[in-house]
Amino acid sequence: MSGNTIGELFRLSTFGESHGPAIGGTIDGCPPGIKLSEADIQPYLDKRRPGQSKFTTQRSEPDQVKILSGVFEGKTTGTPIGLLIENTDQRSKDYGDIKDKFRPGHADFTYNEKYGARDYRGGGRSSARETAVRVAAGAVARRVLEDKISKRVKIRGALVQMGPIDIDPRRWVWTQINKNPFFCPDAKTVPLWEELLNKIRKTGSSTGGIVEVQATGIPAGLGEPVFDRLDADIAKSLMSIPAVKGVEIGAGFSAAWLTGEENADEIRAGQNGPTPANHSGFPRGGLRPEFQSNNAGGTLGGISSGQDIIARMAVKPTSSILTPRQTITTKGKNAEIITKGRHDPCVGIRAVPVAEAMLALTLADHFLRFKAQCGS
Amino acid sequence: MSGNTIGELFRLSTFGESHGPAIGGTIDGCPPGIKLSEADIQPYLDKRRPGQSKFTTQRSEPDQVKILSGVFEGKTTGTPIGLLIENTDQRSKDYGDIKDKFRPGHADFTYNEKYGARDYRGGGRSSARETAVRVAAGAVARRVLEDKISKRVKIRGALVQMGPIDIDPRRWVWTQINKNPFFCPDAKTVPLWEELLNKIRKTGSSTGGIVEVQATGIPAGLGEPVFDRLDADIAKSLMSIPAVKGVEIGAGFSAAWLTGEENADEIRAGQNGPTPANHSGFPRGGLRPEFQSNNAGGTLGGISSGQDIIARMAVKPTSSILTPRQTITTKGKNAEIITKGRHDPCVGIRAVPVAEAMLALTLADHFLRFKAQCGS
Amino acid sequence: MSGNTIGELFRLSTFGESHGPAIGGTIDGCPPGIKLSEADIQPYLDKRRPGQSKFTTQRSEPDQVKILSGVFEGKTTGTPIGLLIENTDQRSKDYGDIKDKFRPGHADFTYNEKYGARDYRGGGRSSARETAVRVAAGAVARRVLEDKISKRVKIRGALVQMGPIDIDPRRWVWTQINKNPFFCPDAKTVPLWEELLNKIRKTGSSTGGIVEVQATGIPAGLGEPVFDRLDADIAKSLMSIPAVKGVEIGAGFSAAWLTGEENADEIRAGQNGPTPANHSGFPRGGLRPEFQSNNAGGTLGGISSGQDIIARMAVKPTSSILTPRQTITTKGKNAEIITKGRHDPCVGIRAVPVAEAMLALTLADHFLRFKAQCGS
Amino acid sequence: MSGNTIGELFRLSTFGESHGPAIGGTIDGCPPGIKLSEADIQPYLDKRRPGQSKFTTQRSEPDQVKILSGVFEGKTTGTPIGLLIENTDQRSKDYGDIKDKFRPGHADFTYNEKYGARDYRGGGRSSARETAVRVAAGAVARRVLEDKISKRVKIRGALVQMGPIDIDPRRWVWTQINKNPFFCPDAKTVPLWEELLNKIRKTGSSTGGIVEVQATGIPAGLGEPVFDRLDADIAKSLMSIPAVKGVEIGAGFSAAWLTGEENADEIRAGQNGPTPANHSGFPRGGLRPEFQSNNAGGTLGGISSGQDIIARMAVKPTSSILTPRQTITTKGKNAEIITKGRHDPCVGIRAVPVAEAMLALTLADHFLRFKAQCGS
Repeated sequence: MSGNTIGELFRLSTFGESHGPAIGGTIDGCPPGIKLSEADIQPYLDKRRPGQSKFTTQRSEPDQVKILSGVFEGKTTGTPIGLLIENTDQRSKDYGDIKDKFRPGHADFTYNEKYGARDYRGGGRSSARETAVRVAAGAVARRVLEDKISKRVKIRGALVQMGPIDIDPRRWVWTQINKNPFFCPDAKTVPLWEELLNKIRKTGSSTGGIVEVQATGIPAGLGEPVFDRLDADIAKSLMSIPAVKGVEIGAGFSAAWLTGEENADEIRAGQNGPTPANHSGFPRGGLRPEFQSNNAGGTLGGISSGQDIIARMAVKPTSSILTPRQTITTKGKNAEIITKGRHDPCVGIRAVPVAEAMLALTLADHFLRFKAQCGS
Repeated sequence: MSGNTIGELFRLSTFGESHGPAIGGTIDGCPPGIKLSEADIQPYLDKRRPGQSKFTTQRSEPDQVKILSGVFEGKTTGTPIGLLIENTDQRSKDYGDIKDKFRPGHADFTYNEKYGARDYRGGGRSSARETAVRVAAGAVARRVLEDKISKRVKIRGALVQMGPIDIDPRRWVWTQINKNPFFCPDAKTVPLWEELLNKIRKTGSSTGGIVEVQATGIPAGLGEPVFDRLDADIAKSLMSIPAVKGVEIGAGFSAAWLTGEENADEIRAGQNGPTPANHSGFPRGGLRPEFQSNNAGGTLGGISSGQDIIARMAVKPTSSILTPRQTITTKGKNAEIITKGRHDPCVGIRAVPVAEAMLALTLADHFLRFKAQCGS
Repeated sequence: MSGNTIGELFRLSTFGESHGPAIGGTIDGCPPGIKLSEADIQPYLDKRRPGQSKFTTQRSEPDQVKILSGVFEGKTTGTPIGLLIENTDQRSKDYGDIKDKFRPGHADFTYNEKYGARDYRGGGRSSARETAVRVAAGAVARRVLEDKISKRVKIRGALVQMGPIDIDPRRWVWTQINKNPFFCPDAKTVPLWEELLNKIRKTGSSTGGIVEVQATGIPAGLGEPVFDRLDADIAKSLMSIPAVKGVEIGAGFSAAWLTGEENADEIRAGQNGPTPANHSGFPRGGLRPEFQSNNAGGTLGGISSGQDIIARMAVKPTSSILTPRQTITTKGKNAEIITKGRHDPCVGIRAVPVAEAMLALTLADHFLRFKAQCGS
Repeated sequence: MSGNTIGELFRLSTFGESHGPAIGGTIDGCPPGIKLSEADIQPYLDKRRPGQSKFTTQRSEPDQVKILSGVFEGKTTGTPIGLLIENTDQRSKDYGDIKDKFRPGHADFTYNEKYGARDYRGGGRSSARETAVRVAAGAVARRVLEDKISKRVKIRGALVQMGPIDIDPRRWVWTQINKNPFFCPDAKTVPLWEELLNKIRKTGSSTGGIVEVQATGIPAGLGEPVFDRLDADIAKSLMSIPAVKGVEIGAGFSAAWLTGEENADEIRAGQNGPTPANHSGFPRGGLRPEFQSNNAGGTLGGISSGQDIIARMAVKPTSSILTPRQTITTKGKNAEIITKGRHDPCVGIRAVPVAEAMLALTLADHFLRFKAQCGS
């Protein structure tokens, strides 16, 4: 395969370029009998949609998703779910500079080397526009988790650092994230980021950020060691998002500083007794222990432990900036380039709903993989 | 599949438990006609082998690899390469405590929940012993890269941080790494780590660490966006190593702090003219630009750029420590556990050859994937 | 995965139901730089299109294919090729009988058992309408084979038996097949079939048939033993076409009657000397032997031999007939059913272009697999 | 991948050559908690074992299987099951003729063209010796079906035609098949085959045959349309057996002769009421209809119907015969070859247990695939 598919059993394949007629994808493996309509998907697309505040790109796309197949009388049928999103704002413009020069930090040079040519319009396939399909598919994955595991399953994300300014996790309030244009869970950090981003935006610069995603309500038992560990597949799914340069689970890189005593998540017998099995046979062991900490981030040996799944990813600053940068032309001559156009000063913001979607897709896939081998 | 296979075209499947008769694996997809014998593999196994210094576990395993198939008259035939390593030091002992209690930080609880039971002897399948097969297969992957790309391809790793003490990258000397028991590239850091680890070892504690791996000589064009990006597959392959909690590429998490101007790896025309194509048709474009920095870590848009591939991974402290920790029994009762036995005080050390192997496997796989779609 | 994808490296995924808004699919893995437009695809769709003679179903569908992605400036880019065909003739009608009863020979009962419900409109996903996407993708596969192997590659099919009447292979003339509505290569058989089918059509009955497909110009070396043998993958791809009940290669079932002496395809040195290698490195050995017969059907040990690939498939009679048949309702009660509507009296006819497409897809996939492991 | 793996969720990978130290394989995806030991596997290997009568090859191999992993305390653990069979009768001999000439009908020429060289000892990887591993894995697949579906699941095969002599299906008695050296279900045919084979054996010739396999007790719902249909995967799995040239399901090729009325398997309400669901949630619909015939061979639309699964395959005559045949040398010169050595005069006989194994593997795989998407 050529890399445009993710998941083994809950499987998303995407297609489409930034300035083609449409982008879309297919979900194969969705269980039958789950209520689904465009209305379940659109709110997540709206979260990712560009042009919603001055802090994101001004490209104007309605991002209306159409379900072309796999749903009948309001429920999934078990056959492939075809998803289509038309491109409407393919602003006609002169692509001259992008066409003949490689933008530093972009995929222009590498696509050219790999394929011998490239669709240079708006980055073509390498454009983050493609992530809209991931967000749509992530909404379907959520429906699977809610329907097949529990309505209590929640997958949420937040921006926890922008440039040098991070949030104070003790002030984390989930309901805050939709009250500001940054998906920031800490109300006191919002004005600081606003000031920072205004400054960056005015100079035509950009900044990096860190996104955290969490999944709650996931039972123990998901993950396929030794290679398709849950943490390994989460790492891949997050690192596959454009501009992501690092991924960590639980204590992550700070685990390097810890001793074994500090790192151990001790276990106590739960007060609530054995977990009732749901209709998928979860959990097998029936234990519901209380972990005293969560340095593991919800996985042990690559298998979910029943604790919250916690992962973070680092997003680099947008490579499109107004300061001229040195580069070469497609003929190999030295040149300079300024990347005009519509850009996000901090792509970490719009990466939040994408990260949530990738986590949802990974969990839905591993849920079906659990069922296949270990389900009752 | 159930997760014991990695790679699409250069594909490793492994089997085996810590205390079973043998561990092993199969490589499918190796190109034919490549010189290969056990002597190409054994040196890498010897690097990972336990019991070589007082700083690693005292389990004594010769780790002699046997090639069972796929090689004829000293060359690969293109058929599957069967690899076998017998377990010899399955020390007979009382497994009582591990059998009936879940060790915090280990996979005991999650294997039990997932599979309903587990091979508790030495951790069974979740033991890091399984990584010996990865190292053996990684040696074969190196032969592919050397034979099919260039003898200049090098894949090397080092421990760059142990607990709170990191190396000074300005003192990095590759020839140092085999002169100390830590794979440390900075001679001045060695005595500091020696002191730290002696202290930790005596108290029965453990510490985390950070490993860096690099690949040089890799041409532009490897990687399959949008999901099987080279960086995404490296992230998965490193995160699939036991005890790894974070992975980053190039500037990694520090990219969050950067501005677009700082992060951009500017490009200048190379002095050496177009790269000569090798017998696999590399590179297509024929450009050999000189990047002015490598914040990208050698990948742009998920495709290799021809720069060095640079990745780091965080390894948590060994969970087996002598201090008693709170846990529960398999019946759900509160208990305490001390993990006696043979352990590495810093598993990050022996993770270095494993990380190299995973990088080699990932690159060999993507090289074949390049050839399939884009090769001449 | 859930079965809606075929091919490993040249990979087709399809979606869509008979009476949904559209059917479509994605091709992933197509090499870049190949000339491609809708005009390369449409002629093959037109061959399969219903309603072209009185001998095929009267459903009227223009079957206009749109390429949504993966082609830029008239050439493939190496990114996924999205294909879309809108459904236009979803005749509004009362589905009552199909909704509540299982049609014998159709997939109604099994879809219901598997998925717990089904899209009963026109058979939903189980409708042969889905094969239009296969035909479109097959046209792209042909372009790959022509561009990457040779313009001499030809993939052609014919109906060789209808009900009890088979053709005389000694009268086989390829140019005949487009001169009659049956894809019949033997002009003298055409009036016999016409008479047969008129009789069948008038009584509302149906008949089976046998289709033969051939590929010429395929070099030696394609096929991946021991499981993904070329013949095994051809068998699967043909058997995956609706209504197919048997597949054979070369001498096929008649090989059971032969002795080893009769069956052996003897080999003589070719008069034309070694084959010149093409730009994909074909062939490796450089031999171009002359086989004295082709009982093997072009594969030995699951690998192409350079001879013509020859396969046949048996197509059962259409299950939709006007004679009432006994069945049960979805509630399990006895009932009778007559399948009114638009049907093909001999689905074997329109199966010809579908069989060609499946052979083309299989060969393109194995060509890329050859390149990955064994290409120069 | 390079073709040495079959199955998506119950997945077998094999390795090994005819004259290497060992052959073996790995099963990944086996559900945990199933009783399994070598004693469950050995009887099936013994059925396939060479040298048991004068009608099969005189190679003497004990074919003792060792389980290297994945079983603990007598039960599967859910981790990969490593299987190893040592080669013991690698008779030292002069391979000169096979080394330098291509045997007609064998894979010598095509392996050479594909890989540029080959392990010529006994056919190397292309030897049917590899099928011993399939038989071992098939025994594990049977255990899964028995444990997870029902002890009533039976997978059985028989030789139904040898050369020109076929059995009379009305005299079919299953208990006969182990009472003669041909797996013949019709006692009256046994002496005819004995006479035929004695004659063939004495002249150093060989003959083809037809094998039929049946699976009973398989519930409705297995199979993944549109490509991974149950019938398509059975066709592939049988066609992947060496020497097989054709595969058919149910009425098979004879369906071409039928009318729709003759072919329709009519349905009546079952007398036994709804089927009780087993612990895997089978069947969903709860219906247990009584089909009035089985032209479909147990699948409708690529999904099992609950009827017996019935498939047949045609096996060509052994290509190794004592009559000299024309061929060429590896240098392309004309030559003659006589294939001395140890051969089966009718490989169809020993293909029976292999065909059973392939059917068992395919069904176990589709059972897990059902569970993943559609299980309760």
